[in-house]
Amino acid sequence: MLFSGGKDSSLAAILLEPFFEVELVTCTFSLLPVGDVAEEAAKRLGFAHRVVRLDMSVLERAYELIIQDGFPRSAINHIHLAAIERLAKEKDAMFIADGVRRDDRVPVPEMSQIRSIEDRYGVSYMSPLKGCGRGVVDELVQRYLVIAEGQSDSVIKADYETEFRELIRRRAGAQRISELFPAHMQSHVIERKKASGKEVAMICTHD
Amino acid sequence: MLFSGGKDSSLAAILLEPFFEVELVTCTFSLLPVGDVAEEAAKRLGFAHRVVRLDMSVLERAYELIIQDGFPRSAINHIHLAAIERLAKEKDAMFIADGVRRDDRVPVPEMSQIRSIEDRYGVSYMSPLKGCGRGVVDELVQRYLVIAEGQSDSVIKADYETEFRELIRRRAGAQRISELFPAHMQSHVIERKKASGKEVAMICTHD
Repeated sequence: MLFSGGKDSSLAAILLEPFFEVELVTCTFSLLPVGDVAEEAAKRLGFAHRVVRLDMSVLERAYELIIQDGFPRSAINHIHLAAIERLAKEKDAMFIADGVRRDDRVPVPEMSQIRSIEDRYGVSYMSPLKGCGRGVVDELVQRYLVIAEGQSDSVIKADYETEFRELIRRRAGAQRISELFPAHMQSHVIERKKASGKEVAMICTHD
Repeated sequence: MLFSGGKDSSLAAILLEPFFEVELVTCTFSLLPVGDVAEEAAKRLGFAHRVVRLDMSVLERAYELIIQDGFPRSAINHIHLAAIERLAKEKDAMFIADGVRRDDRVPVPEMSQIRSIEDRYGVSYMSPLKGCGRGVVDELVQRYLVIAEGQSDSVIKADYETEFRELIRRRAGAQRISELFPAHMQSHVIERKKASGKEVAMICTHD
């Protein structure tokens, strides 16, 4: 499970937990210590976790794309697909998952590219939240997670955007970041609630 | 969970089971005893089940659409959306789910129509398999279900297509069915496997 420390990839991991041995994987370009941020969040969730380094050429290409487009869609999709392909190449890779939701505007990987990765590496890709509307996600997040939410420039997160922003800051200055990225809400997982919702109902019936 | 007795809606129900109190619902126009077929499959899966009658005008409109188009896409989507809306109208409806998969060509409800239903009735819609490629679905079906598969004209199933075909047969003759519907594989659930995959692994570690 590609893991950013945010609520979506955390919830996606929880949904897969009854059916798969979930390992969280955070991709980094080593520009910022996002691996450590993710490691801490993964520990709180109770999942195995590791950090994988993506080649800097992936971020360089993303930089070209965002400067060319003036907005981050293609660039973030490029990094996301590179992360999926990086995991697909691992010898014992079978299932690769992410936290992409139905209503996400980015990243939204092209299905033709996903199918190409699935066919070339013999893996299967899944996004457990892809079929979920906001209502379902909000309900499950509330049941299972304690999160901190804030504007994208104030929350420390281990997603691609964090390091991508850092590269843009170094290359073009902080001003350029707010021109290229629309302000949006980010979340970071603080804690996992142990028993609630259906689980609480089950515990109560034992009393 | 909209339930046809096939592998997709059965698997989708199993994926939701750890998180929701799942009730299977089969929609029928009372042309054929599809409710009984579904009831039997639901019992084998171990889920609560009920049958809901859809208004015949829905099937009449679907008939107009398939005759007009010459293929079933819009017609099946029309029935599927009517089924979702029928459930959304129920007073205590909160979450409505179906077995739509990533690679399905039909039904694929338009997101604008789904969001309209969500907003109008205050419900949330989800398709747990929408983000799943064939590899994931095949793996989980093999782990949890025993199914019978066959060409669409030989397997008894409780989906919309079964009764829709029956209406076409009555109105236009059996020949017309094969002209309008491409032959495709259908599945019907025979049995639920009790413990396998991750569950087996967990049981083994206790020995």
